[in-house]
Amino acid sequence: MTDATVSAVRRQVEARLAAYREQVAPVILRAIPRREPRKHLYDLVEAQLTQEGKGIRPALCLATCRAFGGELNRALPSASAVELLHNAFLVHDDIEDESDFRRGRPTMHREHGVPLAVNVGDAMNAMSARLLRDNIALLGAELSARIFDEFDHLSIETLEGQAMELGWIRDNCCDTTEQDYLLMVLKKTSWYSFIHPTRIGAMIAQPEREDLDAFNRFGFFLGIAFQIQDDVLNLIGDRNRYGKEIGGDLLEGKRTLILSHLFQQLNGHEKARLRAFLGKPRQQRMSREVSWVYELLRLYGSIEYARTAARAFADAARTELRSAYADAQPGEDLEFVRLLLEYMVERDA
Amino acid sequence: MTDATVSAVRRQVEARLAAYREQVAPVILRAIPRREPRKHLYDLVEAQLTQEGKGIRPALCLATCRAFGGELNRALPSASAVELLHNAFLVHDDIEDESDFRRGRPTMHREHGVPLAVNVGDAMNAMSARLLRDNIALLGAELSARIFDEFDHLSIETLEGQAMELGWIRDNCCDTTEQDYLLMVLKKTSWYSFIHPTRIGAMIAQPEREDLDAFNRFGFFLGIAFQIQDDVLNLIGDRNRYGKEIGGDLLEGKRTLILSHLFQQLNGHEKARLRAFLGKPRQQRMSREVSWVYELLRLYGSIEYARTAARAFADAARTELRSAYADAQPGEDLEFVRLLLEYMVERDA
Repeated sequence: MTDATVSAVRRQVEARLAAYREQVAPVILRAIPRREPRKHLYDLVEAQLTQEGKGIRPALCLATCRAFGGELNRALPSASAVELLHNAFLVHDDIEDESDFRRGRPTMHREHGVPLAVNVGDAMNAMSARLLRDNIALLGAELSARIFDEFDHLSIETLEGQAMELGWIRDNCCDTTEQDYLLMVLKKTSWYSFIHPTRIGAMIAQPEREDLDAFNRFGFFLGIAFQIQDDVLNLIGDRNRYGKEIGGDLLEGKRTLILSHLFQQLNGHEKARLRAFLGKPRQQRMSREVSWVYELLRLYGSIEYARTAARAFADAARTELRSAYADAQPGEDLEFVRLLLEYMVERDA
Repeated sequence: MTDATVSAVRRQVEARLAAYREQVAPVILRAIPRREPRKHLYDLVEAQLTQEGKGIRPALCLATCRAFGGELNRALPSASAVELLHNAFLVHDDIEDESDFRRGRPTMHREHGVPLAVNVGDAMNAMSARLLRDNIALLGAELSARIFDEFDHLSIETLEGQAMELGWIRDNCCDTTEQDYLLMVLKKTSWYSFIHPTRIGAMIAQPEREDLDAFNRFGFFLGIAFQIQDDVLNLIGDRNRYGKEIGGDLLEGKRTLILSHLFQQLNGHEKARLRAFLGKPRQQRMSREVSWVYELLRLYGSIEYARTAARAFADAARTELRSAYADAQPGEDLEFVRLLLEYMVERDA
């Protein structure tokens, strides 16, 4: 795409994201109990939930529901529950990754300490489950039970993916393959961010629909393209737009496609040195070592390799989108899903 | 009670607890997915769940169900889900309280680090929710939905109670009253450990039953008596039997009935010194300061005061037990509930 096209896509997608957020935000805010304890619980929940995240997950759920002829209102509790759970994951992930910044601000545990942050994450998780119970009156027992199943699956998959990633860092595992990386991203990102939100949207619109697995393929490829792009931005993005520490993944020792490509290119001496760097406690990693890793990445073209892979996965996602949404109604919702894909692959934040 | 009676009660209760655990343990073990990632997730979950906890919560649920004429099998998923959630809370609580020991062993985060421990707690929480979904086939949609409501309430109350306690420590709040303490214990302990397990057991046995609030009063008083006794044991228990650090609550700065009694007795100079001690980071609290606090506790009779209060709350729990279980069937299950109360007030571990 030309720069002008990229800008036009970005404007359209961001406007639509804002429109979906307007639907979801009041549902989420109503889900926060209006009672004590405020200072050490609900004020922190509210601060987390009113920080402007993009709201990609609820938007995908709502857009998919409407694209298949469903009413937006019927998907609102599920879309809002996904966003609440996403925020619960973020707060715990930032603790687990020892991340200092998120959305351009200090993370919850940096600002309020690990104890309160663990508890705030747990509370958003419980609030997400509470919202899902609204489905029973809205959608009936049977469809609600199916949506519970979707949430059950997405929770367990996400926690398994997180355990894979944390385990690699903990054991300083340096021989993760591309296959390992793809499985980890499927588990950690694709299910909860892309597959289940679209499946649930379609299921609410057409409860009798049987081919929901088409969304698995679409969401898997979209998730990979998204995650690789996220890994790239983490290394070379603009801190002000991206909102996290640039190079933070290197300091955290995260295993990315970029790093697994780099490892395959290195000679024995470089490999040993990179392994030693990744095996250190985070606090002991020095900025000249980080510069050296950047130099290697440039030398071996690992970032460019990852970008090419992201484009290939985006192509696969385009193909699967056409298949999964083949009988969707043309209109702004379907158009949003299409543009979102382009936006996510070309995004710079 | 005489020492001989105490020993006899202990033997009977521990035998019955073991019998209930035998019912619950296989359900919990079956709930652990048999797949990867094992080393950094499910092995840790299994290690946590096979450490012998007493299993008081599931036992109360099963015993209450049977005492009201229900089949034990119908309460097994709910009883097991309570125990899973309890273990999820324990792992996160130990992180939040920076506790080093639990059940005589290093806590999960001491052994495996905070990142994996946060994730393991989240996984046990998700597994608890998954087990609850078994109720739909077993008990029907309506009763299952009511049990979801009970779990929703117990989760939120527990997290609110935890926020209260963490907030007091964080702000070094030294003027917490007995009322504050009682409200915190109701939220942090009584709902999930005593009130909801008995309510759910009775509800499963007699879905048409209307007076479930009698269990609220019973469980509230039992929870208080239990928690005060726990606070006492934390200060003067036998480490080998109690399983946690003796005096650990002082190092964590926990606000207990004992501490709130002590504060009311101190003169201005002592108050300021105790406040300064409690306001320090945990690592800076020295053992001679802890000895000084023990000396004050002895001088002002604060531990004896708490023991007397625990006995009064146990009396109130006895009265409410007679009311809540008035139409229960005599037999070993009802007898267990009665003896459990005596056991918990007189326990030394």
